[in-house]
Amino acid sequence: MSVVRLGIIGLGNMGKGHIGYIKRGEVNGVKLTAVSDSAPSGLEWAKEHAGEDVALFSDPYELMDSGLVDGVLIATPHYSHPELAIACFERNLHVLCEKPAGVYTKQVREMNDAAARTDAVFSMMYNQRTNPLYQKLKDLVDSGELGEIRRTNWIITNWYRSQSYYDSGTWRATWAGEGGGVLLNQDPHQLDLWQWTINMMPKRVRAFCYFGKHRNIEVEDDVTAFVEYENGATGVFVTTTGEAPGTNRLEISGDRGKVVIEDNKLTFWRLRVSEPEFNATYKGGFGQPECWKCEIPIQGVNPDHKGITQNWVNAILHGEQLIAPGEEGIKGLMLSNAMLLSTWTDNWVELPIDEELYYEHLQERIKQSTYRKEQ
Amino acid sequence: MSVVRLGIIGLGNMGKGHIGYIKRGEVNGVKLTAVSDSAPSGLEWAKEHAGEDVALFSDPYELMDSGLVDGVLIATPHYSHPELAIACFERNLHVLCEKPAGVYTKQVREMNDAAARTDAVFSMMYNQRTNPLYQKLKDLVDSGELGEIRRTNWIITNWYRSQSYYDSGTWRATWAGEGGGVLLNQDPHQLDLWQWTINMMPKRVRAFCYFGKHRNIEVEDDVTAFVEYENGATGVFVTTTGEAPGTNRLEISGDRGKVVIEDNKLTFWRLRVSEPEFNATYKGGFGQPECWKCEIPIQGVNPDHKGITQNWVNAILHGEQLIAPGEEGIKGLMLSNAMLLSTWTDNWVELPIDEELYYEHLQERIKQSTYRKEQ
Repeated sequence: MSVVRLGIIGLGNMGKGHIGYIKRGEVNGVKLTAVSDSAPSGLEWAKEHAGEDVALFSDPYELMDSGLVDGVLIATPHYSHPELAIACFERNLHVLCEKPAGVYTKQVREMNDAAARTDAVFSMMYNQRTNPLYQKLKDLVDSGELGEIRRTNWIITNWYRSQSYYDSGTWRATWAGEGGGVLLNQDPHQLDLWQWTINMMPKRVRAFCYFGKHRNIEVEDDVTAFVEYENGATGVFVTTTGEAPGTNRLEISGDRGKVVIEDNKLTFWRLRVSEPEFNATYKGGFGQPECWKCEIPIQGVNPDHKGITQNWVNAILHGEQLIAPGEEGIKGLMLSNAMLLSTWTDNWVELPIDEELYYEHLQERIKQSTYRKEQ
Repeated sequence: MSVVRLGIIGLGNMGKGHIGYIKRGEVNGVKLTAVSDSAPSGLEWAKEHAGEDVALFSDPYELMDSGLVDGVLIATPHYSHPELAIACFERNLHVLCEKPAGVYTKQVREMNDAAARTDAVFSMMYNQRTNPLYQKLKDLVDSGELGEIRRTNWIITNWYRSQSYYDSGTWRATWAGEGGGVLLNQDPHQLDLWQWTINMMPKRVRAFCYFGKHRNIEVEDDVTAFVEYENGATGVFVTTTGEAPGTNRLEISGDRGKVVIEDNKLTFWRLRVSEPEFNATYKGGFGQPECWKCEIPIQGVNPDHKGITQNWVNAILHGEQLIAPGEEGIKGLMLSNAMLLSTWTDNWVELPIDEELYYEHLQERIKQSTYRKEQ
């Protein structure tokens, strides 16, 4: 194979955006051959913008069965990601899936199981993993500069959404329509980066979610979560769509220093000797390890969606290592599921979570949801 | 009365410091007339530094009964603050008490009750209430600039203490000796300012304290607390003595903007219209209220301990309003008691806390403490 023949399922804002950079030739080794959307308006748009040689389908399974595609980019509403991905894997089609991986981990685990049974290349559209800022943080962690992680703290409250945003679609911010709120719709990147940059998932979570606190919606729009990691580190994650101007500040403390990412800058407070070493030898009472405030250069721009798409294409064509393996999509989703479950049970949630229990709780809320898919 | 005759009980670092600025004449209307300390070395020091006209007592009650003092500054170990203050109130002596007010709220409530039965002027040594930085924050809250408070977040992890600090006294960081760790010894100012600046105490607390996590000590040295306020606001408080270089960052969000205090600077992100007003009228989907980043000037220097002492003296002599009324010492202490109790019961703690329950839990830990006062 010298060119990946690509089908895109779902022509909302994301699907249209992907078509844009692919049609502009910004990804090598890929050719858009087919799109599908259940809405006639989506296909009308595609007829005009995708090019005459692109086949149009109203049924995504007809696209998969058409013989026109080697790989599929899934950009549909959250709930359908796993079932569509599984159908692709059953046809040995490569999959690039928009975030979140799904709405509940049970369906995402089934997707991962299906992926494992094929040779298909499976990636998640985690286009913040290519952001030089978070790549540098991961570099500092992986190279040992930060030492052993002691604490994480992400205040990510700059996802302001007005009521008019929520009112723009009846499915929005409903359990039946989107399956979650700020955690599922705004935070997937942060929930991915939070564990990807430090190579650690929490072992348990105690979270405090509020539903329709700031807006007239069913789902969570305000969350504070506390987590414990296996090595004894702890973490806090605070998020909301209800605050202006909000904050985006990530602090990671290790036993060799501290990193803060804020305002697109990464600052590293570097200890000359590790804290445990200082503590073991220091005899002076007050006093602390010598510390240098280092402004870390961030080079390059984030290739963003097209960077992840290029990587997926290269993985298919040349076996390049994936930046965002699809199987890792379950991690961020498990964090958001755990936060909701902890709130619903008003208790700790151990990870990996009880997928069946989460599914049951979610179904209960879907039953009571104001949104009906049949509408 | 034209001059307050002052007795100081306890000649540790704090007591000696108070003597220093009073002897240098930096507080008007006060004259040091007596000191007491149970250790002969303390009285030796006083003989040399306090002046020949200052009476020396090894028994604090003899100082109180000497007829030489109108008011008493209590600078003894935490546990004894309430019992000494109560003895002063029974003798109609004015009291200026070092922080924390005590170790458990039950004893502090008894102290407050005793104060209420007298006309004595009772103040706490909350010398950060005179810090222009926090006064300005309180000004922004009180004047309505911030609007209704939505969220508080204090990362106060720059209290680094090495093992050698803890090893410098057998009473240090023990339940029997000090009665607590970072919350009681390092954080009293922050726990006071956290509620004083915004005029709100939490209504319930869920906290996660770790005991001897970073050091070989009995008490808490790592805490994350989540709180809910009556008006629906939430808050986070993170503290430890185990991290270097640590952080001191306070963020307060209101519905008219956001304040961050860090690096001795106060920044105010000011919304031109309040968030609820914007939300009620905006129809554009994405988009948020116009916001101005304002650097707020901080004028003056913190008069610190002598500022509080001067205010207490002025209150005695001229009826000046107290900056830190003694009865308010229970608030910060209740927060730290609530955080420990939440951890010990692994559950929510409603405020005001169950004082008896806290007392019982504390006694249990004192029984198992390695430190014995008899030693």
